Amino acid sequence: MRLLLVNPNMTEAMTDRMAEIARTVAPPETEILPLTAKRGFPYIASRAEAQIGGALAYDLIAEHAEGTDAAIIAAFGDPGLAGARELFDFPIVGMAEAALMSAAMLGERISIVTFSPVMRRWYGDSVRDAGLMPRFTGVRTPPAHVRDLANLQQNLRPELIRLCAQAVEEDNADVVILGGAPLAGLAPEIANEVEALVVDPITAATVQAQALVSLGSQAGFARRRSKPLAKAASGLPDALTRQFGRDMDP
Amino acid sequence: MRLLLVNPNMTEAMTDRMAEIARTVAPPETEILPLTAKRGFPYIASRAEAQIGGALAYDLIAEHAEGTDAAIIAAFGDPGLAGARELFDFPIVGMAEAALMSAAMLGERISIVTFSPVMRRWYGDSVRDAGLMPRFTGVRTPPAHVRDLANLQQNLRPELIRLCAQAVEEDNADVVILGGAPLAGLAPEIANEVEALVVDPITAATVQAQALVSLGSQAGFARRRSKPLAKAASGLPDALTRQFGRDMDP
Amino acid sequence: MRLLLVNPNMTEAMTDRMAEIARTVAPPETEILPLTAKRGFPYIASRAEAQIGGALAYDLIAEHAEGTDAAIIAAFGDPGLAGARELFDFPIVGMAEAALMSAAMLGERISIVTFSPVMRRWYGDSVRDAGLMPRFTGVRTPPAHVRDLANLQQNLRPELIRLCAQAVEEDNADVVILGGAPLAGLAPEIANEVEALVVDPITAATVQAQALVSLGSQAGFARRRSKPLAKAASGLPDALTRQFGRDMDP
Amino acid sequence: MRLLLVNPNMTEAMTDRMAEIARTVAPPETEILPLTAKRGFPYIASRAEAQIGGALAYDLIAEHAEGTDAAIIAAFGDPGLAGARELFDFPIVGMAEAALMSAAMLGERISIVTFSPVMRRWYGDSVRDAGLMPRFTGVRTPPAHVRDLANLQQNLRPELIRLCAQAVEEDNADVVILGGAPLAGLAPEIANEVEALVVDPITAATVQAQALVSLGSQAGFARRRSKPLAKAASGLPDALTRQFGRDMDP
Amino acid sequence: MRLLLVNPNMTEAMTDRMAEIARTVAPPETEILPLTAKRGFPYIASRAEAQIGGALAYDLIAEHAEGTDAAIIAAFGDPGLAGARELFDFPIVGMAEAALMSAAMLGERISIVTFSPVMRRWYGDSVRDAGLMPRFTGVRTPPAHVRDLANLQQNLRPELIRLCAQAVEEDNADVVILGGAPLAGLAPEIANEVEALVVDPITAATVQAQALVSLGSQAGFARRRSKPLAKAASGLPDALTRQFGRDMDP
Amino acid sequence: MRLLLVNPNMTEAMTDRMAEIARTVAPPETEILPLTAKRGFPYIASRAEAQIGGALAYDLIAEHAEGTDAAIIAAFGDPGLAGARELFDFPIVGMAEAALMSAAMLGERISIVTFSPVMRRWYGDSVRDAGLMPRFTGVRTPPAHVRDLANLQQNLRPELIRLCAQAVEEDNADVVILGGAPLAGLAPEIANEVEALVVDPITAATVQAQALVSLGSQAGFARRRSKPLAKAASGLPDALTRQFGRDMDP
Repeated sequence: MRLLLVNPNMTEAMTDRMAEIARTVAPPETEILPLTAKRGFPYIASRAEAQIGGALAYDLIAEHAEGTDAAIIAAFGDPGLAGARELFDFPIVGMAEAALMSAAMLGERISIVTFSPVMRRWYGDSVRDAGLMPRFTGVRTPPAHVRDLANLQQNLRPELIRLCAQAVEEDNADVVILGGAPLAGLAPEIANEVEALVVDPITAATVQAQALVSLGSQAGFARRRSKPLAKAASGLPDALTRQFGRDMDP
Repeated sequence: MRLLLVNPNMTEAMTDRMAEIARTVAPPETEILPLTAKRGFPYIASRAEAQIGGALAYDLIAEHAEGTDAAIIAAFGDPGLAGARELFDFPIVGMAEAALMSAAMLGERISIVTFSPVMRRWYGDSVRDAGLMPRFTGVRTPPAHVRDLANLQQNLRPELIRLCAQAVEEDNADVVILGGAPLAGLAPEIANEVEALVVDPITAATVQAQALVSLGSQAGFARRRSKPLAKAASGLPDALTRQFGRDMDP
Repeated sequence: MRLLLVNPNMTEAMTDRMAEIARTVAPPETEILPLTAKRGFPYIASRAEAQIGGALAYDLIAEHAEGTDAAIIAAFGDPGLAGARELFDFPIVGMAEAALMSAAMLGERISIVTFSPVMRRWYGDSVRDAGLMPRFTGVRTPPAHVRDLANLQQNLRPELIRLCAQAVEEDNADVVILGGAPLAGLAPEIANEVEALVVDPITAATVQAQALVSLGSQAGFARRRSKPLAKAASGLPDALTRQFGRDMDP
Repeated sequence: MRLLLVNPNMTEAMTDRMAEIARTVAPPETEILPLTAKRGFPYIASRAEAQIGGALAYDLIAEHAEGTDAAIIAAFGDPGLAGARELFDFPIVGMAEAALMSAAMLGERISIVTFSPVMRRWYGDSVRDAGLMPRFTGVRTPPAHVRDLANLQQNLRPELIRLCAQAVEEDNADVVILGGAPLAGLAPEIANEVEALVVDPITAATVQAQALVSLGSQAGFARRRSKPLAKAASGLPDALTRQFGRDMDP
Repeated sequence: MRLLLVNPNMTEAMTDRMAEIARTVAPPETEILPLTAKRGFPYIASRAEAQIGGALAYDLIAEHAEGTDAAIIAAFGDPGLAGARELFDFPIVGMAEAALMSAAMLGERISIVTFSPVMRRWYGDSVRDAGLMPRFTGVRTPPAHVRDLANLQQNLRPELIRLCAQAVEEDNADVVILGGAPLAGLAPEIANEVEALVVDPITAATVQAQALVSLGSQAGFARRRSKPLAKAASGLPDALTRQFGRDMDP
Repeated sequence: MRLLLVNPNMTEAMTDRMAEIARTVAPPETEILPLTAKRGFPYIASRAEAQIGGALAYDLIAEHAEGTDAAIIAAFGDPGLAGARELFDFPIVGMAEAALMSAAMLGERISIVTFSPVMRRWYGDSVRDAGLMPRFTGVRTPPAHVRDLANLQQNLRPELIRLCAQAVEEDNADVVILGGAPLAGLAPEIANEVEALVVDPITAATVQAQALVSLGSQAGFARRRSKPLAKAASGLPDALTRQFGRDMDP
């Protein structure tokens, strides 16, 4: 099985960190192919950036679609998820959606804890888009944005544990998702200090990609009635243009 | 990994069929332990029966909890799911919920097709309880109840394919779940004839049980703040009484 | 008129107290028949316990169904309510639901005040199941659980009055329900100290049982299309087995 | 106990008919005082008419408030209900709301059947305002408006029974409310021919008025924090002006 | 174009102030006709008052309907809006609804800040009636009611700026509406001190009245199927009686 | 006032037609600047295409932002609306959202009628994103997609009138929006044949752009707290890169 791990952000260190985590949880026969955006933003943190980052993710997926079994859009917030799911004939996994759906099977009430108030709105959108608002208790964040994303896990650790405790005590969360690529891999390290289950999104996305490939035959994707009509695109990368025009006459 | 497959119905042939399917999708190192209710009903089809069947499922899970990594409540409708999740310190997978969450990662709009109008209301409840109503397009069933559950898959096949087509054309479903234990294993057989992805619930429950065990450390379950207080139960089976009183002084 | 007052908890003192209150508000010609669970839990406080307690309530109702006009499930949280309503051919009154519906006719915004944070989630479920979330402002409780239920009314009285005041001032409640059998009968005693209407659930359940018997002829219940199909149950108490199989050939 | 039966419509024959029904269900010691609007419309059938009719109901209630224990606003659609409940210090019963709340305790899914498509929207509003949309399956009506309200019960009887059957079969209703004052008293006459419980709104309003008086002490109403501030009204009937200014200095 | 500015309150100074603001934003060829209720209340602040005030607004609109292109109901809370829209054949603009719809096109999350806790509930109703709850973050008010409405803008200015800051910081509002006629015209004066867009409702209502007249031809209103049936009203002002009976034979 | 009319589709004839309509409704002093996407798709009809088209719209807006007072994203479905509204410091008008908000002030229940079933889902998303689902009655379309967009208005005219009639009769719509750029300008031509108000989206967008410029001072946009943090973008057009980095040190 080949799994694309598509980072719509430009920060390769994040992609590497996420691929490393994904490989620890995927079975050995799964090939994880990490891809990083070549244009756009170091780190998407708003809807305007997600609009552009989502479109860039399509370029990367289209370029590597051949022989691929599933793709993870590896930015919490799931830029471009709905469109990618229409366009490509294999499972597309959103990191936020996979974390939410997994959390919803582990416990009843779900919170997101993340590193910056800047992310609150976009992450909240991803819960609404997942359709899981009835299970959601909100996003908790530190009061101020921190620019040094590289050292977040050490610097914010006590603050994030405190936010998890608030999610449990005040919001009655059963499961806490540590949202945002800069927190990838932190969940198992702080789990002992939280009175709830703690979910790591890239781990969730990886196990869900495995699960979905087991469930949905690729032939089924091609038969879907709800796929976009074939379109003649202009000025887009070749692979993406071919993807949009895939049922058109040559 | 040891996985309980708990059928709250008394029909062993159904349990056997579901265990057979689960074993085809689980990795070889997973031990599937099928359990069938010794009391109750041949096939749960109402909320009153689910109230009782859910309580009986707790007996079975408690009796085999030692050394278990996860349990599937193997009746679409998920009798007793919320309570089991509070009570036991490992993942509890609902067959309906697992199918819904999986479907929601494969496509946007989700339908349930099942074999009898009698099931409509209970299955609808399970979508509401899962919290996924915004992604749900409804339950479609044949107009009348059929008593011969054993031969449903042959007898109703054309009717069920027609109902899937209606779910796609009229309700714009991207994914159709074939709900109900009597339809276990039918999804891959009719998938070619449906213009949407088709999900088999016991397969979904099995792959999700795998995924959840990878995600949530059993230690985390024990630390949860939202567990019921220890209680001295009376007149319940021994194993279940111990489970309710598990933190009490001897 | 004969009215069952079914306590799914094992604490007879609670049943007696509730029956005493019910008799003060019922007309003299109403026979109140108090029934207490012989198995299960001293006091239900979680969904797992409610799953079992609800099933035990069915045993009690089935045993005394003959000649009965209505039954109250006398545990706030309404264990087994939806199923009981399907199964029996007379009105089934949930103590929480009756309090909520009554409150909703007295004022616009409704709060629940109860004695322990442990009850919060289960009581919240009962509002969702009643379908009255748009009128609901939340559950307020003391911060910690108190094990001595017998003396709650004296010990917690000032705290409960303070919680009612918060419900009024911060949540804009028009009506406050004092939820939980241990608080039965407290409402009229503290009403003078609350700037809102205060509802006692067992009183509400009793007056609603009267109202429903006046409204719905028992013949109508038997004609309902939405009743479960007759079922051959195994290993259940005789009366309940007969109830499930009531339309089957002998 | 004194109960006002306030018809915001001008048709006295309707008032008389409703008072007659109310008296059959109220205990003998309850005095039913029927009141009919002296201005306005023969029969309210739109929101513009309800705006005016609701205000006229306040005149009637204020004039007879002294010594009154409860008032029914006896027009399905409940004109002026929210405001009356704020203004007066005794229970105000809406005929639609009382029917809905009663129905919601008799069964799970509730339909309204009425005599004209003209009423559909206003009646739907009353369900939304009651906060019971999650229990509601819709309004069913004949396709065209009939002007002869006096003979509706005979002329439309077969059509209304057919609409009830559709509510049961297609909408899965457990309880059907026959909405609209012109249908007052019809429910028990057609109940035999409907596979669901059938609720008569004026009967429901009368039994709920009884229930609410038993529950909420009049002193509690006066203590409510959510009452409007005292106001100096101009150009309104004397009794209503006094009601609005009731806490003002003389 | 002729635009009625209908104040359902009796305070002419408010009407004058609102008309003055409306004239600054309307094009010179728009005739603004200010109308003030001759009966009722100095200032509507509850649902009971709004029931009556809304009915009085119909009198004023009906009296001046001839030759009118649109009417503003110039009380935040929109008394009588739904009925007026059914009844009259030109655009009816609610001050609250127009502010909300305008705000929803300027930013994503909308708050209302107003001068008194007394208004909270009625203003909240107007958001629900507008159908915009998903965009709404709540009403913020000073803790206590202030009776001196005439000097509110000076006296409460710092408090209102502080409430706007809370709406931005705690509720993540993008747009703040300064609700309530006594605050008319304050928005531009404090906008510099708020980190969000600030909307003045009478300005919003005026520009929306212009917009709606450009959009909907008056002929279209007359063709609407959803208009109330013609009715013979009694005891209402002549112009309103004619309006209700407008399609009846002479 | 300068108003950008940004067509994220590549079909210039559509842009020209929409600009022509906009100019008939805008005051003479408004400069309408039509812009057409130079890359992408002839006509956006899916979420994948909207993801890309929305990002392309940002290029066009950024390039012409200097001196601009407002921009219309002139594709029904509003690609990129939420992000554009965060990013730019002037009103961004979505053609679908403006039509919906305008319709919601003209009548209570709103339908969309469009030319192809392909558009149904994306247009439905725009209602959800606008937050107006409680006012929405659904999208009606012909059963099959028609490829000849240029002659739609003549070819589909009778079909579209029939769909409007269904929206009125079956869905009780008060206002019908003719959605989709290929139908621009058709509303006034068929209005006479529809028993509801009919709204033309580009007209609605133009009048709302006027209204919003009157309401929200451009200074207010710059002060918003909810703007994205300044970002160093790579590989994007220069004007857009400057827009994202606008508050960064040189």
